[in-house]
Amino acid sequence: MVKRASIVIFSDELDKACAAFTIANAAAASGMEVNLFFSCWGVNVVRRKGPLFQGDTLMNRLMSLLSRGGAEKLKLSRFDFFGLGSWMMRRMMKEKNIQSIPEMMADAKDLGVKFLVCDNPTAIMGLKREDLIDEVDDIVGAATYVHESAGAELTLFI
Amino acid sequence: MVKRASIVIFSDELDKACAAFTIANAAAASGMEVNLFFSCWGVNVVRRKGPLFQGDTLMNRLMSLLSRGGAEKLKLSRFDFFGLGSWMMRRMMKEKNIQSIPEMMADAKDLGVKFLVCDNPTAIMGLKREDLIDEVDDIVGAATYVHESAGAELTLFI
Amino acid sequence: MVKRASIVIFSDELDKACAAFTIANAAAASGMEVNLFFSCWGVNVVRRKGPLFQGDTLMNRLMSLLSRGGAEKLKLSRFDFFGLGSWMMRRMMKEKNIQSIPEMMADAKDLGVKFLVCDNPTAIMGLKREDLIDEVDDIVGAATYVHESAGAELTLFI
Repeated sequence: MVKRASIVIFSDELDKACAAFTIANAAAASGMEVNLFFSCWGVNVVRRKGPLFQGDTLMNRLMSLLSRGGAEKLKLSRFDFFGLGSWMMRRMMKEKNIQSIPEMMADAKDLGVKFLVCDNPTAIMGLKREDLIDEVDDIVGAATYVHESAGAELTLFI
Repeated sequence: MVKRASIVIFSDELDKACAAFTIANAAAASGMEVNLFFSCWGVNVVRRKGPLFQGDTLMNRLMSLLSRGGAEKLKLSRFDFFGLGSWMMRRMMKEKNIQSIPEMMADAKDLGVKFLVCDNPTAIMGLKREDLIDEVDDIVGAATYVHESAGAELTLFI
Repeated sequence: MVKRASIVIFSDELDKACAAFTIANAAAASGMEVNLFFSCWGVNVVRRKGPLFQGDTLMNRLMSLLSRGGAEKLKLSRFDFFGLGSWMMRRMMKEKNIQSIPEMMADAKDLGVKFLVCDNPTAIMGLKREDLIDEVDDIVGAATYVHESAGAELTLFI
């Protein structure tokens, strides 16, 4: 029987996204079925780059200003220093021939990794399907997450 | 055989507590046995609101000043801005008809989710059973956590 | 059949390392096979104390200045206040007879816990085998992590 991995990407930090996609792609490459669940700040990883102020209420628009989408814009969880740290990290990853997040995401799709986005955070942020990148397979609720995870061999919350 | 979920709540941040209870309640609603283990800062989620300075040593009292209990007081892991962010988040959750943490906790108890508190952080913080809310089922050690988790289908550290 | 635990130590924060080793040692003491995977900032936990500036490029040297190794130097994820918080935490742990990280690490080795370090972060930080402490069993890739974790009963990302 095919083994499965279920990974919650809760954060939109460069270092954590990097860990999540590295594990997801290695699992998929080894023949596992992999479901990624983007939740809370993690939704930003699969958000289409949009206007500075996005959303239908003032709150959503302020929120969208603070956390803009785009996988190539992620920051470090530490030592970011207004972007200097994440720039340095990206350069060091390139120097050591380690893939960037957009490259890892492309590989993930090629390997059949499913991109699922949690419905509550999406609703809180006032985002619609068209605000998310094409790679997203579905917007799902917690029941779907639990159903997939209860049958998975590898469950992580990153 | 009944499936089981074992979730460590390590953090007392609003966004992470929200994710933990959403998953716990969805798992319990689907028929799983769910154990929540409150550890480290997570102990604050199940701490009774007490006096500003709590504990038997100066250190414990300083500690208690920094991290006060009460599930309705949790802050965001990011963009909290001295409470503005978490206030905004609470308002947005209400607007979108998403439950508050105290409501989720009440549902969790109704669904039979067990609230277990880890003994070491409780000892470090100088807290006693009466400093924790009534919903707490037990104070347990790491051996109990491991025993429960080794038999669980879904294991998370949030 | 022997049950297994696979724990990613992603962070080099005192509180998270403490949780990770507490779980690892309790699992090992109960007869489980335990693999710890030190990744990203977690590599600092098993880094030998070195010179202030370490590494072969300017970037690596700056990086090494920001995150120095040494298990006895870990900081808290919150309220660290330039070391005051972690000093307080260490004192409180001692008062309550809770082991320090170096003591927990020694116990872990005695109990047969494996210390595995992820290759990508090690490469990014420009670290070599001799920059890591003797307790490290191996430097491994994501494929090894996935292989070990897919067969493990308890999988955590800390």
